[in-house]
Amino acid sequence: MKEFSYINWIQKQLTPPKEVFIPSGDDAAGVRIGNKSLLITTDLIVENIDFTLKEATPFQIGYKSIAISISDIAAMGGNCNKLYVVATVALRKNLVRQFAKELFRGMKHIADKFNVSIIGGDVSSVKGPISITSTVFGISDKSEHIRRSGACVRDAIMVTGSLGGSILGKHLNFTPRLNEARMLTKKYSIHSMIDISDGLSADLNHILERSKKGAVLLEQLIPVSDSAKKLSKRDKKSALEHALTDGEDFELLFTLPLNHAWRILQDKPFAAPVSLIGIIKKKQGIILINKKGKNIKVNPKGFDHF
Amino acid sequence: MKEFSYINWIQKQLTPPKEVFIPSGDDAAGVRIGNKSLLITTDLIVENIDFTLKEATPFQIGYKSIAISISDIAAMGGNCNKLYVVATVALRKNLVRQFAKELFRGMKHIADKFNVSIIGGDVSSVKGPISITSTVFGISDKSEHIRRSGACVRDAIMVTGSLGGSILGKHLNFTPRLNEARMLTKKYSIHSMIDISDGLSADLNHILERSKKGAVLLEQLIPVSDSAKKLSKRDKKSALEHALTDGEDFELLFTLPLNHAWRILQDKPFAAPVSLIGIIKKKQGIILINKKGKNIKVNPKGFDHF
Repeated sequence: MKEFSYINWIQKQLTPPKEVFIPSGDDAAGVRIGNKSLLITTDLIVENIDFTLKEATPFQIGYKSIAISISDIAAMGGNCNKLYVVATVALRKNLVRQFAKELFRGMKHIADKFNVSIIGGDVSSVKGPISITSTVFGISDKSEHIRRSGACVRDAIMVTGSLGGSILGKHLNFTPRLNEARMLTKKYSIHSMIDISDGLSADLNHILERSKKGAVLLEQLIPVSDSAKKLSKRDKKSALEHALTDGEDFELLFTLPLNHAWRILQDKPFAAPVSLIGIIKKKQGIILINKKGKNIKVNPKGFDHF
Repeated sequence: MKEFSYINWIQKQLTPPKEVFIPSGDDAAGVRIGNKSLLITTDLIVENIDFTLKEATPFQIGYKSIAISISDIAAMGGNCNKLYVVATVALRKNLVRQFAKELFRGMKHIADKFNVSIIGGDVSSVKGPISITSTVFGISDKSEHIRRSGACVRDAIMVTGSLGGSILGKHLNFTPRLNEARMLTKKYSIHSMIDISDGLSADLNHILERSKKGAVLLEQLIPVSDSAKKLSKRDKKSALEHALTDGEDFELLFTLPLNHAWRILQDKPFAAPVSLIGIIKKKQGIILINKKGKNIKVNPKGFDHF
């Protein structure tokens, strides 16, 4: 059983009560509380899967653990007045003392940067790989959040930043696109959004499956990162393949009416680059038009834990 | 550095915003949301620390992971209209399929029993001990929750159930005392409460430290479990020592005015046994009066993960 099929199986076992207006299956869950709404997301990172002690400092590990959850809140549009986090940490006994403190400092650093209050947690020892779970939640006056399921035929597909090769460093020090998400949802009519954690093609596929749509991407428009190019020199994959399939870029992938997309390209609403990469179609599946104008079917693969 | 000193160090780094009316350091954190309040608790269980695959079925592991968080909500008085849970699971690749499904069924079983909606989660593989983090939160119309810090001089100290030897099985199949907590807070004036996860003396000490008080316990009143007696035949510890120091009984330990304690003993408000075991004193520390009438100083030790 693969990770996604386990998650799909679980989702079928659940019958969310009516106040859960965003059930499991989006970047965060949403619960109505009186005239407010709560968004909550929980994320797990594990040593030797999501980081190694050889490449990452404890500060970076702590930073990443919370940054990925903030990125999930961003993917919902980020319309929360205030954010909070609780976290659990499983540490080897030989890593307590300085390591544990540095880990916390990394968590605190990213939390402070985005005004996220750390309000609780739990610690345990483990005789094996260390792991951290962060649960970020936020309260919002309105319940208008951006779902994966809102993509419409003829929507433009846009992405922030550049993609691929995150493993060379970005996955440990990326800045969650929370401010960008807030700007986008405030000024433009965003129909659907996700953060790129599994890889561009896999995450686009999450949007398409939930929205019951398809997509056409233009190769020449995809913002391939320098890291993707660097990585492609080391392995047999092209830089484009890295941009399409590498996970953990934590950029925003979103769809919106074409005229709003043009406005974004003209406005340049924030410092981060933003690219128009394709169009939502009625016919399901992902087609990539390569530089020679040839249609290529994209297999929406991404990182699967199992 | 010990577990508690790491947690204490972390708590000193935090400056909770004013709407966080119960900061880190209680069984759950509390956040005001308009005229409602949110309680949230997060708990981590790790293979070979909190369970072994030899003794526990995957169903029991899933059950325990959520039961301990429900127990934390109970320790706050359980005054939540509705409870929700998000969870993360780190699994070895050879354990997916049937194991993963049974794990989820255990989670679902305890969640359904207490009307807790499972609304989200995350999974990862791990090359080592498996672990589960459950984060349970609830919404309440009022913000009257029972704190660790409310114990008053001359309060009676009471405990539900019987104590010690949980490792023989209770730690995997206990029923969180949520209904009992709700009954207690509805009918009696509970001043302070905690659930026994670290052990009677350690958890009583948590109440005493937060309340800046001391306690006197009477040996003959402490409800020593059959498991504690059984265990004491195997090792050098007395059954009383097991009752005082064994963790994971997940019973409620609480303090209240003496006349309310008498009423509870007369009323028998629920099926679970409830015992008066001592009195809160001004002078700090824990004194145990043994069966010969001798005063013994109790070292508040309990389970420490590091």
